[in-house]
Amino acid sequence: MIKVGLSEMRDIASGAAILGTGGGGDPYIGKLMALTAIRNHGPVTLLDPTEVPDDWFVVPTAMMGAPTVLIERIPRGDEAVASLRLLEKYHGRKADATMPIEAGGVNSTIPFVVAAKTGLPVIDGDGMGRAFPELQMETFSVYGIPGSPIAIHDERGNSAVLNAVDNFALEWLARGLTIKMGGSSHIAEYAMSGKEVKRTAVRNCVSLVLKIGRTIREAAEKKESPLEALMRVTEGTNYGKAIPLFKGKILDVERRTTAGFAVGKTTIEGLDEYSGKTMTIRFQNENLMAAVDGEVVATVPDLISILDTESAQAITTEGLRYGFRVTVVGIPTPEIMRTPEALKVWGPRYFNLETDYIPLELRHPAFYGKAKLSPDKEGKYRPHLTS
Amino acid sequence: MIKVGLSEMRDIASGAAILGTGGGGDPYIGKLMALTAIRNHGPVTLLDPTEVPDDWFVVPTAMMGAPTVLIERIPRGDEAVASLRLLEKYHGRKADATMPIEAGGVNSTIPFVVAAKTGLPVIDGDGMGRAFPELQMETFSVYGIPGSPIAIHDERGNSAVLNAVDNFALEWLARGLTIKMGGSSHIAEYAMSGKEVKRTAVRNCVSLVLKIGRTIREAAEKKESPLEALMRVTEGTNYGKAIPLFKGKILDVERRTTAGFAVGKTTIEGLDEYSGKTMTIRFQNENLMAAVDGEVVATVPDLISILDTESAQAITTEGLRYGFRVTVVGIPTPEIMRTPEALKVWGPRYFNLETDYIPLELRHPAFYGKAKLSPDKEGKYRPHLTS
Repeated sequence: MIKVGLSEMRDIASGAAILGTGGGGDPYIGKLMALTAIRNHGPVTLLDPTEVPDDWFVVPTAMMGAPTVLIERIPRGDEAVASLRLLEKYHGRKADATMPIEAGGVNSTIPFVVAAKTGLPVIDGDGMGRAFPELQMETFSVYGIPGSPIAIHDERGNSAVLNAVDNFALEWLARGLTIKMGGSSHIAEYAMSGKEVKRTAVRNCVSLVLKIGRTIREAAEKKESPLEALMRVTEGTNYGKAIPLFKGKILDVERRTTAGFAVGKTTIEGLDEYSGKTMTIRFQNENLMAAVDGEVVATVPDLISILDTESAQAITTEGLRYGFRVTVVGIPTPEIMRTPEALKVWGPRYFNLETDYIPLELRHPAFYGKAKLSPDKEGKYRPHLTS
Repeated sequence: MIKVGLSEMRDIASGAAILGTGGGGDPYIGKLMALTAIRNHGPVTLLDPTEVPDDWFVVPTAMMGAPTVLIERIPRGDEAVASLRLLEKYHGRKADATMPIEAGGVNSTIPFVVAAKTGLPVIDGDGMGRAFPELQMETFSVYGIPGSPIAIHDERGNSAVLNAVDNFALEWLARGLTIKMGGSSHIAEYAMSGKEVKRTAVRNCVSLVLKIGRTIREAAEKKESPLEALMRVTEGTNYGKAIPLFKGKILDVERRTTAGFAVGKTTIEGLDEYSGKTMTIRFQNENLMAAVDGEVVATVPDLISILDTESAQAITTEGLRYGFRVTVVGIPTPEIMRTPEALKVWGPRYFNLETDYIPLELRHPAFYGKAKLSPDKEGKYRPHLTS
């Protein structure tokens, strides 16, 4: 159990933006909302999944929509609670806890807004361990939890409870409604038992982003390199070691908001040891694939984050500007995100990228060594590590 | 009280298509569904609004979507009942009756499908006395009944209960969801008490369409002119006398399905006494405005129906084909549809037509005489009749 007060909340917001891989909503707005809620209502309890009773009723809360829209429509803060209450009413049961569905600017902080306002604890886990653009891209969904019913609320007071035949239809319908609501909405979905949380959630992502945020902040306070500190912090967790993929300055960002998503391509001109090279990153809300001079160096579901080279703070897709000095880092995704059933949902092919998933460790043996290429000791299937 | 069996249902379907003014869904599919339901479950009771107890819980049922789509997606028939049940569940109360929301092919018959399958009576009234393309275009809405909550169901089994801040938002959001459901959906909305039905519904539209359908059929059986019989049947009802607006053959139909509506323009080349003239009719699902050689001869909310010249059967917008011989008739809309608050919702300006509403009677004094031009004896405001 961790108590999340103002200082912890700031670190969570900063660390979460890194796992947000360019998406997950604006970290600044998310942080402000959560800080205000904690200031008004006191610290929030963060529970390890192992501390959650099996029979608890857990209701994840989040925002839905294109990050480009979220940034222009600052929520009042009570819509998220309203969506939780609506789902409670539908189920005829009060929630015992809330939980994030993804890591990223606004969606790592919304559950803390809800928790502070309702007195509920937040569970230290989520459904992606990163950010993804679509609702069926949740370990919850991959491992059998229905996303329906979903409660949807907008800031005008419109609401809906949707029941879809599967989680793809859920995404399709909820996206349509969210677009009609102006491009962003507040949702509560994938309600599940404490037992199901333990089985299906990516564990300890919240405490990890807290650790990432704190590490970067402390390094800056001690005049050490935040970037070097970051590179060490995910090693030995359920993620793998972070590695540098590129260093340069932003040359161009092609971005359009279409069908409720921010879709496009970021181009980065290399600096220092990457001088003369060019990185392109394709994104749909989140960064999906990074290539250097046309050669793929990382893809979903591994994490591709664009950081300010100086401060190591993550820059979201909609925050990118010409000339920014950035370092792109790759972080291996947890095992639960790499199973064959998981890769069907969020592998590169799903996003129409013309490459199969090759784990980051295999793409960069210089950083990870050959030993990592064989199956792990639990014998888990990792599609390209055994070849 | 009227018992609606197979013969009455056929007449209702044929008459309703005339009040459907080109929209309201395909009459053929609607009729088949209702006939099957009545064949399997027995006749349906049609109740006059005066027979409905004040404390009854009345749940109107309908289909939503572009008629061009409805025709390609034949419903199973149980989706309409599912939307009623979903709304009952939300309200925690069983419906005592169902009711149409509009007159027209599919939406005059869907309530009979629901009634036959559930044993509920149908109330002889609706919210338009004709067909209109949008959900807030209901006398229910004009006179203060919230359309929310609305239950929406598709034929795959997806469903939603929507609560909107007003009936315009309801239309906007439900339309978005319907589009995502493939362009058509089954809805239950504007749930109200028996007392509210009496106050807000356009009365006796169902028995009127039954009478229209029967009159046309019997005229044909007696080898009389169905068209001439039709011209007499609405006289003396809460509608006014039907008049001929044009006679000719279909020259062109420009139609596109956009934002969930079938929108476009029909062009008719004059025959006989209209030889050398051209009528154009603009529509959004329903016919909105008719002009002869550029001069407006009728607009919403008065009814503009395109009929087969021989049989007097209505032809829906999506049924129009080059060369069809047609007669266009105009029918004055009931008073409850012409109040200032009503005209704000469905007057020509709402549809971006560049004309004010001028009642059909005023546009055609040759048919209606000058006596009709003064305010009626209840002193009801009729915007252009007093000028």
